[in-house]
Amino acid sequence: MLRMKLKTFDHLNCSLAQTLSVVGEHWTMLIVRDVFFGLRRFDQFQKDLGIARNILSDRLKKLVEAGVLEKSEDGGHPEYRLTDKGLALQPILLSMTHWGDTYMPNPHGKRLSFVDRRDGKPIRSMAVHAADGRKLKPQQVKAKPGPAFVNDHQTSPMISALVRHGDV
Amino acid sequence: MLRMKLKTFDHLNCSLAQTLSVVGEHWTMLIVRDVFFGLRRFDQFQKDLGIARNILSDRLKKLVEAGVLEKSEDGGHPEYRLTDKGLALQPILLSMTHWGDTYMPNPHGKRLSFVDRRDGKPIRSMAVHAADGRKLKPQQVKAKPGPAFVNDHQTSPMISALVRHGDV
Repeated sequence: MLRMKLKTFDHLNCSLAQTLSVVGEHWTMLIVRDVFFGLRRFDQFQKDLGIARNILSDRLKKLVEAGVLEKSEDGGHPEYRLTDKGLALQPILLSMTHWGDTYMPNPHGKRLSFVDRRDGKPIRSMAVHAADGRKLKPQQVKAKPGPAFVNDHQTSPMISALVRHGDV
Repeated sequence: MLRMKLKTFDHLNCSLAQTLSVVGEHWTMLIVRDVFFGLRRFDQFQKDLGIARNILSDRLKKLVEAGVLEKSEDGGHPEYRLTDKGLALQPILLSMTHWGDTYMPNPHGKRLSFVDRRDGKPIRSMAVHAADGRKLKPQQVKAKPGPAFVNDHQTSPMISALVRHGDV
Protein backbone atom coordinates (compact mmCIF):
# COMPACT_ATOMS: atom_id res chain seq x y z
CA MET A 1 0.00 0.00 0.00
CA LEU A 2 2.75 2.41 0.95
CA ARG A 3 4.59 1.25 -2.13
CA MET A 4 1.61 2.03 -4.32
CA LYS A 5 1.15 5.39 -2.68
CA LEU A 6 4.77 6.28 -3.25
CA LYS A 7 4.43 5.30 -6.86
CA THR A 8 1.36 7.43 -7.47
CA PHE A 9 2.71 10.34 -5.39
CA ASP A 10 -0.58 10.53 -3.49
CA HIS A 11 1.37 11.38 -0.38
CA LEU A 12 2.71 14.49 -2.11
CA ASN A 13 -0.70 15.82 -2.95
CA CYS A 14 0.24 18.85 -4.95
CA SER A 15 -0.36 19.83 -8.54
CA LEU A 16 3.24 19.31 -9.56
CA ALA A 17 3.26 15.80 -8.12
CA GLN A 18 -0.08 15.06 -9.80
CA THR A 19 1.32 16.18 -13.12
CA LEU A 20 4.48 14.17 -12.66
CA SER A 21 2.39 11.07 -11.93
CA VAL A 22 1.17 11.38 -15.55
CA VAL A 23 4.09 12.87 -17.46
CA GLY A 24 7.08 12.48 -15.13
CA GLU A 25 8.79 9.80 -17.13
CA HIS A 26 11.08 10.42 -20.05
CA TRP A 27 9.32 8.28 -22.66
CA THR A 28 5.94 9.73 -21.84
CA MET A 29 6.80 13.26 -22.88
CA LEU A 30 8.58 12.04 -26.01
CA ILE A 31 5.48 10.08 -27.03
CA VAL A 32 3.33 13.17 -26.39
CA ARG A 33 5.78 15.20 -28.51
CA ASP A 34 5.44 12.70 -31.34
CA VAL A 35 1.65 13.00 -31.25
CA PHE A 36 2.03 16.81 -31.40
CA PHE A 37 4.21 16.23 -34.48
CA GLY A 38 1.42 14.28 -36.12
CA LEU A 39 2.39 10.67 -35.51
CA ARG A 40 -0.69 8.59 -34.71
CA ARG A 41 0.13 4.89 -34.74
CA PHE A 42 1.93 2.44 -32.49
CA ASP A 43 4.47 1.45 -35.16
CA GLN A 44 5.26 5.09 -35.91
CA PHE A 45 6.06 5.84 -32.26
CA GLN A 46 8.02 2.63 -31.99
CA LYS A 47 10.11 3.36 -35.06
CA ASP A 48 10.62 7.03 -34.23
CA LEU A 49 11.68 6.55 -30.61
CA GLY A 50 13.35 3.15 -30.77
CA ILE A 51 11.39 2.25 -27.64
CA ALA A 52 10.69 -1.33 -26.57
CA ARG A 53 7.20 -2.43 -27.62
CA ASN A 54 6.12 -3.45 -24.13
CA ILE A 55 7.17 -0.10 -22.65
CA LEU A 56 5.46 1.82 -25.46
CA SER A 57 2.31 -0.22 -25.00
CA ASP A 58 2.31 0.50 -21.26
CA ARG A 59 2.90 4.25 -21.68
CA LEU A 60 0.19 4.60 -24.33
CA LYS A 61 -2.27 2.75 -22.11
CA LYS A 62 -1.48 5.06 -19.19
CA LEU A 63 -1.80 8.18 -21.35
CA VAL A 64 -5.23 7.03 -22.56
CA GLU A 65 -6.30 6.20 -18.99
CA ALA A 66 -5.11 9.63 -17.84
CA GLY A 67 -7.20 11.29 -20.57
CA VAL A 68 -4.17 12.77 -22.34
CA LEU A 69 -4.61 10.69 -25.50
CA GLU A 70 -7.71 9.20 -27.05
CA LYS A 71 -7.55 5.98 -28.97
CA SER A 72 -9.76 5.42 -31.99
CA GLU A 73 -10.08 2.16 -33.86
CA ASP A 74 -11.44 3.65 -37.09
CA GLY A 75 -10.06 2.05 -40.22
CA GLY A 76 -8.45 -1.00 -38.66
CA HIS A 77 -5.28 0.37 -37.05
CA PRO A 78 -5.72 2.05 -33.66
CA GLU A 79 -4.83 5.74 -33.79
CA TYR A 80 -3.89 8.04 -30.93
CA ARG A 81 -4.78 11.72 -30.78
CA LEU A 82 -4.35 14.43 -28.15
CA THR A 83 -7.39 15.37 -26.09
CA ASP A 84 -7.79 18.96 -24.82
CA LYS A 85 -5.98 17.81 -21.67
CA GLY A 86 -3.16 16.54 -23.87
CA LEU A 87 -2.99 19.69 -26.00
CA ALA A 88 -2.73 21.67 -22.75
CA LEU A 89 0.67 20.05 -22.17
CA GLN A 90 2.17 22.30 -24.84
CA PRO A 91 3.51 24.95 -22.40
CA ILE A 92 5.35 22.19 -20.51
CA LEU A 93 6.85 20.76 -23.70
CA LEU A 94 7.88 24.18 -24.98
CA SER A 95 9.32 25.23 -21.60
CA MET A 96 11.41 22.07 -21.64
CA THR A 97 12.47 22.64 -25.24
CA HIS A 98 13.51 26.25 -24.61
CA TRP A 99 15.46 25.25 -21.50
CA GLY A 100 17.30 22.61 -23.53
CA ASP A 101 17.94 25.13 -26.35
CA THR A 102 19.55 27.46 -23.82
CA TYR A 103 21.42 25.20 -21.45
CA MET A 104 22.15 22.06 -23.46
CA PRO A 105 22.39 23.41 -27.01
CA ASN A 106 22.96 21.36 -30.11
CA PRO A 107 26.42 22.26 -31.55
CA HIS A 108 24.84 22.93 -34.95
CA GLY A 109 22.29 25.41 -33.59
CA LYS A 110 18.60 24.83 -32.98
CA ARG A 111 17.10 21.75 -34.49
CA LEU A 112 13.59 23.12 -34.48
CA SER A 113 12.17 26.51 -33.71
CA PHE A 114 8.54 27.11 -32.89
CA VAL A 115 6.69 29.83 -34.71
CA ASP A 116 3.29 31.45 -34.90
CA ARG A 117 1.48 29.64 -37.72
CA ARG A 118 -0.06 32.96 -38.84
CA ASP A 119 3.05 35.04 -39.49
CA GLY A 120 5.91 32.54 -39.13
CA LYS A 121 7.57 34.61 -36.38
CA PRO A 122 9.21 32.73 -33.50
CA ILE A 123 7.10 32.47 -30.37
CA ARG A 124 8.38 34.19 -27.22
CA SER A 125 10.61 32.19 -24.92
CA MET A 126 8.50 30.51 -22.28
CA ALA A 127 8.59 32.74 -19.23
CA VAL A 128 6.71 33.60 -16.07
CA HIS A 129 4.56 36.74 -16.30
CA ALA A 130 2.93 38.94 -13.67
CA ALA A 131 -0.78 39.79 -13.91
CA ASP A 132 0.10 43.00 -15.78
CA GLY A 133 2.31 41.15 -18.25
CA ARG A 134 5.75 41.98 -16.83
CA LYS A 135 8.25 39.14 -17.17
CA LEU A 136 9.20 37.88 -13.71
CA LYS A 137 12.57 36.51 -12.64
CA PRO A 138 12.56 33.33 -10.53
CA GLN A 139 13.21 35.24 -7.30
CA GLN A 140 10.28 37.59 -7.96
CA VAL A 141 7.78 34.73 -7.64
CA LYS A 142 6.46 33.65 -4.25
CA ALA A 143 4.30 30.71 -3.17
CA LYS A 144 1.13 31.55 -1.25
CA PRO A 145 -1.02 29.04 0.65
CA GLY A 146 -4.29 28.23 -1.17
CA PRO A 147 -7.60 26.87 0.20
CA ALA A 148 -6.35 23.27 0.19
CA PHE A 149 -3.23 24.16 2.12
CA VAL A 150 -4.88 24.28 5.55
CA ASN A 151 -7.15 21.28 4.98
CA ASP A 152 -4.43 19.15 3.55
CA HIS A 153 -2.88 17.13 6.32
CA GLN A 154 -0.48 15.64 3.84
CA THR A 155 1.34 18.91 3.32
CA SER A 156 4.92 18.52 4.43
CA PRO A 157 5.53 20.30 7.75
CA MET A 158 8.80 21.70 6.39
CA ILE A 159 7.21 23.20 3.29
CA SER A 160 4.27 24.45 5.38
CA ALA A 161 6.58 26.30 7.73
CA LEU A 162 8.49 27.91 4.87
CA VAL A 163 5.33 28.95 3.02
CA ARG A 164 3.68 30.37 6.16
CA HIS A 165 6.84 32.25 6.94
CA GLY A 166 6.64 33.80 3.50
CA ASP A 167 10.09 32.67 2.50
CA VAL A 168 9.15 30.92 -0.72
CA MET B 1 26.81 1.19 -26.25
CA LEU B 2 23.35 1.26 -27.76
CA ARG B 3 22.00 0.87 -24.26
CA MET B 4 23.94 3.87 -23.03
CA LYS B 5 22.78 5.91 -25.98
CA LEU B 6 19.18 5.01 -25.35
CA LYS B 7 19.55 5.97 -21.73
CA THR B 8 21.06 9.38 -22.47
CA PHE B 9 18.69 10.01 -25.39
CA ASP B 10 21.65 10.98 -27.58
CA HIS B 11 19.94 9.32 -30.49
CA LEU B 12 17.04 11.76 -30.11
CA ASN B 13 19.19 14.81 -30.33
CA CYS B 14 16.65 17.51 -29.67
CA SER B 15 16.28 20.06 -26.91
CA LEU B 16 13.32 18.33 -25.34
CA ALA B 17 15.21 15.05 -25.15
CA GLN B 18 18.25 16.85 -23.73
CA THR B 19 16.09 18.42 -21.05
CA LEU B 20 14.42 15.11 -20.23
CA SER B 21 17.84 13.51 -19.83
CA VAL B 22 18.31 15.86 -16.86
CA VAL B 23 14.82 16.36 -15.43
CA GLY B 24 12.73 13.59 -16.99
CA GLU B 25 12.34 11.57 -13.86
CA HIS B 26 9.68 12.16 -11.24
CA TRP B 27 11.94 12.52 -8.19
CA THR B 28 14.26 14.93 -9.93
CA MET B 29 11.65 17.62 -10.41
CA LEU B 30 10.35 17.15 -6.87
CA ILE B 31 13.87 17.62 -5.48
CA VAL B 32 14.26 20.75 -7.62
CA ARG B 33 10.89 21.99 -6.31
CA ASP B 34 12.08 21.45 -2.72
CA VAL B 35 15.21 23.52 -3.39
CA PHE B 36 12.98 26.28 -4.83
CA PHE B 37 11.02 26.08 -1.55
CA GLY B 38 14.22 26.67 0.42
CA LEU B 39 15.21 23.19 1.52
CA ARG B 40 18.99 22.79 1.33
CA ARG B 41 20.09 19.58 3.00
CA PHE B 42 20.03 15.87 2.26
CA ASP B 43 18.01 15.02 5.36
CA GLN B 44 15.44 17.72 4.59
CA PHE B 45 14.82 16.33 1.09
CA GLN B 46 14.75 12.81 2.43
CA LYS B 47 12.19 13.64 5.12
CA ASP B 48 10.06 15.83 2.88
CA LEU B 49 9.82 13.41 -0.04
CA GLY B 50 10.02 10.06 1.74
CA ILE B 51 12.53 9.01 -0.91
CA ALA B 52 15.04 6.19 -0.42
CA ARG B 53 18.46 7.52 0.56
CA ASN B 54 20.33 5.79 -2.26
CA ILE B 55 17.95 7.19 -4.88
CA LEU B 56 18.13 10.68 -3.38
CA SER B 57 21.91 10.49 -3.29
CA ASP B 58 22.02 9.44 -6.94
CA ARG B 59 19.59 12.17 -8.09
CA LEU B 60 21.45 14.92 -6.18
CA LYS B 61 24.75 13.78 -7.68
CA LYS B 62 23.27 13.90 -11.18
CA LEU B 63 21.74 17.35 -10.61
CA VAL B 64 25.13 18.67 -9.45
CA GLU B 65 26.89 17.05 -12.44
CA ALA B 66 24.32 18.59 -14.78
CA GLY B 67 24.97 22.03 -13.28
CA VAL B 68 21.42 22.42 -11.97
CA LEU B 69 22.44 22.39 -8.30
CA GLU B 70 25.65 23.46 -6.65
CA LYS B 71 26.87 21.75 -3.54
CA SER B 72 28.68 23.70 -0.84
CA GLU B 73 30.33 22.18 2.20
CA ASP B 74 30.40 25.36 4.31
CA GLY B 75 29.62 24.75 7.94
CA GLY B 76 29.96 20.98 8.01
CA HIS B 77 26.71 19.81 6.37
CA PRO B 78 26.66 19.86 2.58
CA GLU B 79 24.07 22.27 1.23
CA TYR B 80 22.48 22.35 -2.21
CA ARG B 81 21.45 25.51 -4.01
CA LEU B 82 20.06 26.24 -7.47
CA THR B 83 22.44 27.58 -10.09
CA ASP B 84 21.17 29.95 -12.80
CA LYS B 85 20.59 26.86 -14.93
CA GLY B 86 18.50 25.44 -12.08
CA LEU B 87 16.55 28.66 -11.49
CA ALA B 88 15.74 28.65 -15.21
CA LEU B 89 13.68 25.50 -14.64
CA GLN B 90 10.95 27.61 -13.03
CA PRO B 91 8.79 27.93 -16.18
CA ILE B 92 8.79 24.12 -16.49
CA LEU B 93 7.81 23.66 -12.84
CA LEU B 94 5.08 26.29 -13.02
CA SER B 95 3.74 24.95 -16.33
CA MET B 96 3.48 21.53 -14.70
CA THR B 97 1.86 22.97 -11.59
CA HIS B 98 -0.74 24.93 -13.57
CA TRP B 99 -1.57 21.90 -15.69
CA GLY B 100 -2.09 19.85 -12.53
CA ASP B 101 -4.23 22.62 -11.01
CA THR B 102 -6.47 22.54 -14.07
CA TYR B 103 -6.66 18.89 -15.01
CA MET B 104 -5.98 16.99 -11.79
CA PRO B 105 -7.27 19.42 -9.16
CA ASN B 106 -7.14 18.89 -5.43
CA PRO B 107 -10.74 18.48 -4.15
CA HIS B 108 -10.13 21.22 -1.57
CA GLY B 109 -8.98 23.78 -4.14
CA LYS B 110 -5.45 24.90 -4.86
CA ARG B 111 -2.81 23.95 -2.38
CA LEU B 112 -0.44 26.72 -3.38
CA SER B 113 -0.79 29.66 -5.68
CA PHE B 114 2.13 31.56 -7.10
CA VAL B 115 2.17 35.30 -6.85
CA ASP B 116 4.28 38.29 -7.78
CA ARG B 117 6.39 39.00 -4.71
CA ARG B 118 5.97 42.75 -5.28
CA ASP B 119 2.19 43.09 -5.22
CA GLY B 120 1.00 39.63 -4.14
CA LYS B 121 -1.12 39.22 -7.27
CA PRO B 122 -1.28 35.75 -8.87
CA ILE B 123 1.03 35.27 -11.82
CA ARG B 124 -0.53 34.58 -15.24
CA SER B 125 -1.20 31.00 -16.17
CA MET B 126 1.77 29.65 -18.07
CA ALA B 127 0.94 30.00 -21.75
CA VAL B 128 2.52 30.24 -25.17
CA HIS B 129 2.80 33.77 -26.56
CA ALA B 130 3.43 35.14 -30.05
CA ALA B 131 6.19 37.70 -30.63
CA ASP B 132 3.63 40.51 -30.23
CA GLY B 133 2.35 39.06 -26.96
CA ARG B 134 -0.86 37.39 -28.17
CA LYS B 135 -1.67 34.15 -26.36
CA LEU B 136 -1.46 31.25 -28.79
CA LYS B 137 -3.57 28.09 -28.77
CA PRO B 138 -1.75 24.80 -29.32
CA GLN B 139 -2.86 24.55 -32.95
CA GLN B 140 -1.55 28.05 -33.71
CA VAL B 141 2.05 26.98 -33.09
CA LYS B 142 4.11 25.36 -35.82
CA ALA B 143 7.56 23.73 -35.79
CA LYS B 144 10.08 25.11 -38.26
CA PRO B 145 13.42 23.46 -39.16
CA GLY B 146 16.39 25.22 -37.58
CA PRO B 147 20.09 25.22 -38.64
CA ALA B 148 20.77 21.89 -36.94
CA PHE B 149 17.88 20.22 -38.69
CA VAL B 150 19.62 19.67 -42.01
CA ASN B 151 22.99 18.72 -40.53
CA ASP B 152 21.54 16.39 -38.00
CA HIS B 153 21.52 12.91 -39.45
CA GLN B 154 19.91 11.65 -36.30
CA THR B 155 16.66 13.46 -36.98
CA SER B 156 13.91 10.93 -37.37
CA PRO B 157 12.90 10.55 -41.03
CA MET B 158 9.25 10.60 -40.02
CA ILE B 159 9.49 13.83 -38.06
CA SER B 160 11.68 15.34 -40.82
CA ALA B 161 9.05 14.60 -43.44
CA LEU B 162 6.27 16.11 -41.33
CA VAL B 163 8.27 19.25 -40.50
CA ARG B 164 9.38 19.79 -44.11
CA HIS B 165 5.83 19.34 -45.26
CA GLY B 166 4.81 22.10 -42.85
CA ASP B 167 2.27 19.96 -41.04
CA VAL B 168 3.54 20.45 -37.53
